[in-house]
Amino acid sequence: MATIFSRIISGELPCHRVYEDERVLAFLDVFPVSRGHTLVVPKEAVPTLDALSDESAAAIGRVLPRICRAVLQGTGATAFNVLQNNGKAAHQAVLHVHFHIIPHYENGQGLGIQWKAGTLDAGTGAGLAAEIASRMSG
Amino acid sequence: MATIFSRIISGELPCHRVYEDERVLAFLDVFPVSRGHTLVVPKEAVPTLDALSDESAAAIGRVLPRICRAVLQGTGATAFNVLQNNGKAAHQAVLHVHFHIIPHYENGQGLGIQWKAGTLDAGTGAGLAAEIASRMSG
Repeated sequence: MATIFSRIISGELPCHRVYEDERVLAFLDVFPVSRGHTLVVPKEAVPTLDALSDESAAAIGRVLPRICRAVLQGTGATAFNVLQNNGKAAHQAVLHVHFHIIPHYENGQGLGIQWKAGTLDAGTGAGLAAEIASRMSG
Repeated sequence: MATIFSRIISGELPCHRVYEDERVLAFLDVFPVSRGHTLVVPKEAVPTLDALSDESAAAIGRVLPRICRAVLQGTGATAFNVLQNNGKAAHQAVLHVHFHIIPHYENGQGLGIQWKAGTLDAGTGAGLAAEIASRMSG
């Protein structure tokens, strides 16, 4: 599976690099939703987060706060969203795991979110939580 | 700083728990955007991701793929979004770091995203990437 991100990771294609280590690469999105929009990707090439190894996921998690601080300091933004899409139906465009860091600015520039929330009744919640929790044992 | 999440973590308030370890708690959002909407929170009480310790961030990162797999298996969803909001301007409601895992269903139920992207010219990109990268050294 070779996406455009694999070609950036290998150095075949250029990027505006922000950070790199053994497992992680971060670079500016060339189609930014706002100024400083940064992509954080594992070097491991898997399409979605549920398929990522614990080691790559831990490496990204560990460095995310530091990259977020650098993005805030480098842009002057004070609010931001981290978004990670999985599956074309969920707005994933490149089938290699990536976390978007999207600064939010006072003029409203940033990620637009439509939040239509319902409520969870206690009975449904207990059953569903048990259903999900039972899959965590593996 | 005690938010409702601190009170859930301490056990003072109940939750529909999905997963727990020394550093991380995951439970169902009681105002779900879609069925199986799960919150993953560090036990460390800080408001935003940029303020989170490397250790807590790595612990969340490491377990995220496993929780995502359990949510998919427990709900039957095949696509999903992970969203983490920082700052009231960026839709953060509870000032304790949390990652939303929001399943996406074929009927369209899931996170709504408004994606207004621009383009990044090479000169601007190089300057901005250098500006951000220079803050990564610390």
